[in-house]
Amino acid sequence: MRVIGLDPGLGTTGWGVIEAEASRLSHVASGFVETDAARPLAERLAVLHRALAGLIAQWRPDEAAVEETFVNRNPLSTLKLGQARGVVLLAPALAGIPVAEYQPTEVKRAVVGQGHAAKAQVQAMVRMLLPGAAPERADTADALAVAICHVHHRATADRLAMAGAR
Amino acid sequence: MRVIGLDPGLGTTGWGVIEAEASRLSHVASGFVETDAARPLAERLAVLHRALAGLIAQWRPDEAAVEETFVNRNPLSTLKLGQARGVVLLAPALAGIPVAEYQPTEVKRAVVGQGHAAKAQVQAMVRMLLPGAAPERADTADALAVAICHVHHRATADRLAMAGAR
Repeated sequence: MRVIGLDPGLGTTGWGVIEAEASRLSHVASGFVETDAARPLAERLAVLHRALAGLIAQWRPDEAAVEETFVNRNPLSTLKLGQARGVVLLAPALAGIPVAEYQPTEVKRAVVGQGHAAKAQVQAMVRMLLPGAAPERADTADALAVAICHVHHRATADRLAMAGAR
Repeated sequence: MRVIGLDPGLGTTGWGVIEAEASRLSHVASGFVETDAARPLAERLAVLHRALAGLIAQWRPDEAAVEETFVNRNPLSTLKLGQARGVVLLAPALAGIPVAEYQPTEVKRAVVGQGHAAKAQVQAMVRMLLPGAAPERADTADALAVAICHVHHRATADRLAMAGAR
């Protein structure tokens, strides 16, 4: 199973594609999409959409996992993040790929083992769990982390389903 | 000039297409897009996107005008609205159509003459300014109102440009 993880943001959206074969994870590709703050909002959203649609066409993930937005205290930041997040959720949905959402605490628990881990710990664990991945930016590490979180959840769900079928 | 006005919402997005020839306005088509609250978010956003992309292909507006979201006190509502709004801004941008944004007070001022008009007043004025339009829903009336607002702003900008050129 190939999963694309996405960490949405209007300025920077992190992305990471991983592959899971039984319990073995491997890094396929990762990076981030930046949009120019000097351009109009609609144009920035179009840049983000085109980049994500291109990545999905190129890497052909089977499923997508998106980090649930931290609800900021500042309503304008929340609105901005919401706008980017809508576009990020849309890209896999238009490609017919199922989209799962995970809270930041779930992601940290899946990757580091506890829900309130620091950014640097997430980054270090991502490098350890995915040899070859060297995410330089926190956005990319977070995207890979949400993809790992999704694989764990899927594996647990499969085990439960098998136990139920016995 | 043909303008599509859009009033974004995750549950219901109003849309309205009008035409402006000199100072004469006319109603072309209008309605609303609904998404099913029982479906996953990403799927609802895909339904909204496909509907808007279809309307833009069908009615071929030259420009788009979107109502600026009222920033709600509830962060979760703001996030939800933001997600729909991102998808609403994206559709015309992907079609290469310039997108303008207007505050609700600007829209009311352009249509009713004052910034704090009631919804019913906006609806009544939209019917008067656009013979043939009979928006049953406030979302549709608001979408037509933001399109009218955009035409007024463009006309003022053109007059100023002509005055400057003299």
